[in-house]
Amino acid sequence: MKYGVIGANGKMGREIIDYFSSIGDELVMKIDIGLEEIVDRPDVIIDFSNRSALDKTIELCQKFSCPLVIGTTALTGEDFDRLRELSNIVPVVQSYNFSQGIAILKSILESFGKYFSDWDGAIVEIHHNQKKDAPSGTAIMLKNSLSREIPISSLRIGGVFGEHVVIFSNAGEVIEIKHTALSRRAFSLGVRKAALFALEKNKGFYSYSDVLNEF
Amino acid sequence: MKYGVIGANGKMGREIIDYFSSIGDELVMKIDIGLEEIVDRPDVIIDFSNRSALDKTIELCQKFSCPLVIGTTALTGEDFDRLRELSNIVPVVQSYNFSQGIAILKSILESFGKYFSDWDGAIVEIHHNQKKDAPSGTAIMLKNSLSREIPISSLRIGGVFGEHVVIFSNAGEVIEIKHTALSRRAFSLGVRKAALFALEKNKGFYSYSDVLNEF
Amino acid sequence: MKYGVIGANGKMGREIIDYFSSIGDELVMKIDIGLEEIVDRPDVIIDFSNRSALDKTIELCQKFSCPLVIGTTALTGEDFDRLRELSNIVPVVQSYNFSQGIAILKSILESFGKYFSDWDGAIVEIHHNQKKDAPSGTAIMLKNSLSREIPISSLRIGGVFGEHVVIFSNAGEVIEIKHTALSRRAFSLGVRKAALFALEKNKGFYSYSDVLNEF
Amino acid sequence: MKYGVIGANGKMGREIIDYFSSIGDELVMKIDIGLEEIVDRPDVIIDFSNRSALDKTIELCQKFSCPLVIGTTALTGEDFDRLRELSNIVPVVQSYNFSQGIAILKSILESFGKYFSDWDGAIVEIHHNQKKDAPSGTAIMLKNSLSREIPISSLRIGGVFGEHVVIFSNAGEVIEIKHTALSRRAFSLGVRKAALFALEKNKGFYSYSDVLNEF
Repeated sequence: MKYGVIGANGKMGREIIDYFSSIGDELVMKIDIGLEEIVDRPDVIIDFSNRSALDKTIELCQKFSCPLVIGTTALTGEDFDRLRELSNIVPVVQSYNFSQGIAILKSILESFGKYFSDWDGAIVEIHHNQKKDAPSGTAIMLKNSLSREIPISSLRIGGVFGEHVVIFSNAGEVIEIKHTALSRRAFSLGVRKAALFALEKNKGFYSYSDVLNEF
Repeated sequence: MKYGVIGANGKMGREIIDYFSSIGDELVMKIDIGLEEIVDRPDVIIDFSNRSALDKTIELCQKFSCPLVIGTTALTGEDFDRLRELSNIVPVVQSYNFSQGIAILKSILESFGKYFSDWDGAIVEIHHNQKKDAPSGTAIMLKNSLSREIPISSLRIGGVFGEHVVIFSNAGEVIEIKHTALSRRAFSLGVRKAALFALEKNKGFYSYSDVLNEF
Repeated sequence: MKYGVIGANGKMGREIIDYFSSIGDELVMKIDIGLEEIVDRPDVIIDFSNRSALDKTIELCQKFSCPLVIGTTALTGEDFDRLRELSNIVPVVQSYNFSQGIAILKSILESFGKYFSDWDGAIVEIHHNQKKDAPSGTAIMLKNSLSREIPISSLRIGGVFGEHVVIFSNAGEVIEIKHTALSRRAFSLGVRKAALFALEKNKGFYSYSDVLNEF
Repeated sequence: MKYGVIGANGKMGREIIDYFSSIGDELVMKIDIGLEEIVDRPDVIIDFSNRSALDKTIELCQKFSCPLVIGTTALTGEDFDRLRELSNIVPVVQSYNFSQGIAILKSILESFGKYFSDWDGAIVEIHHNQKKDAPSGTAIMLKNSLSREIPISSLRIGGVFGEHVVIFSNAGEVIEIKHTALSRRAFSLGVRKAALFALEKNKGFYSYSDVLNEF
């Protein structure tokens, strides 16, 4: 696959290049602040940058008529409108979290949460001490996958990259479902699955759940 | 609910009586070696005894025309034939493991195992040092819920009642699904769900999966 | 060993009798409300009852000139004075928690806490949903074994008997030390170690740390 | 601190430079195959390269009369002889594992293992699927810290960087001590502690235990 990266110098941009290259994909376009290298038409464009780059991203997708995988955070309603407009021409996969494991965990809770309706539930999430928000957005999303309120405990400690544990217990049993992100590789693996998905799709606006369902 | 217990003096028999009584059910029949107390017609009969008691169990279910929940182990093909015959008259729920959590875990693996096809997998199971078989029957059943082989590590240590952990990992993430049985209460809770299920069913032969699906 | 139990009908009393008997000790004295059976002189008296029984306990220890192991909770300063007075005649082992594992964990934290001075720390404790206090007394004791403040997260969920996890993490590593009490057996094992300890000691007032140091 | 790195282009070399630089240390010497940059006298030299570089390492330590911290693996008896000779002139800290956490865990087992003599024990270690040896050298070292044999279970799965769990259980309790290395930062933190230690020492041959004892 020939691919381009918007935000090529960011942490996720570098990780994506590191991973995609390691399995033989060809980097043909690098865009970042003060950087624009285009050596060939990309089959897919990946944007993990900033919403201020959205003009450029959309322009390039249109120019090359190629799909977009976008993980840029803090998008506005207007940004989403523009991405939906772009999706009338090419496939657009948008998500705030490209971890396959978190998507699977969310899906397990949606399907099996009902069986735990008479069990107690809780979520524990652990992240490094530089993370400022608590509970994590992911923990809130997981809680919202259940049709009831359960408490969330947040630990901010050392260099833990990211752990989420959903615990259910009744009087005689405990079930814990635990997700550990080991590194940014957790996300670049999912980004590549999304890129492969986009390559085979027609125009349209897709979420990561759509990607997961085709595994 | 008025209930009877075959194997009333066994470990599971006593646990069932302890739990059912604690929530107001009425014990009207106790059967064990040298013991036969019947004070009223049971709504349901529960058998956690020995296959040698099967004649008595079937006779009583027929006499009272009441459903059977049976967790007796090491049943033969012939025993199953006789239980199926009984199920032409009354509901029969048969399982070797009445833990709700294990049934849920098995069902999660059946539904979601496909998403882990390109992740590595492993099972770790931990039981007390009196348990003779390894791997546990439950670990084997869980492995068989997946459509591929994964290794099983067995630890026999101290007084651990029973833990099963199914682990999946790719290059960037780990998902662990862990079941802990805290005590025999893990099973008596599931037995009561099976009894309630049987009370509302017509004749027929049911597994614990059938019970789970109606939660 | 010939032993007597004050509070013989309580949960811990019954567990102690169950365990001690399983390994061949001889129960020669049972005391509880409305119950007083003494068939022989006990080598050691074990009191897991109520401070209202303290008169009786002290009277019997004096009468038989035998050591006391006492786990009765909510003792007052005056009660401690009386136990210390008794310890001028016989050995007295007093503790609010007879778990060997918790005593070992506390001792590890006292000895090794200094190595974690530049790591972040946290405690997570999980107990069943009937436990009313949070954090647990044991979690507070463990925290106080360190010479600094660390946060405690408390989960009250299902039937979990008792888990305490002390977590340390720096930018590159995590160490977790986790104690799980499986059942009251966690305590009766330690009570018997204390009884054996008391049998070999002269008069004096001892804590569970003293017992641990002689393992 | 002004520091030099032998093996500057290796994985650990780059991690050490990344970490030391992030806290303000000054890199004044970089040595690797085909690379020799020396801009100033180093206060300490760090060698995470290959035993074939040992001549160069010893020559530079002598030339600058500066301490050595060496984590190079697969050293021979002869190599150790030469390092001991060097330690007659400058401080030399040698270890095959610079993780602080593993050193602490080993020390806990050495001090507290005796308390678990009548508990069952086991070690579980989990590493990524590229690791060829099993059990890990660290697991064997931890087992040898105890004065008895306990079984080791090894899992090779996904991208797990490195986990070691030592488990003890008796009939009523479980204690688990778990070490997780999150990344190479686990080691560079310990290397810097060793470097600070070496700066304050006179000539001599030191292990990582010596470093730990001065924390």
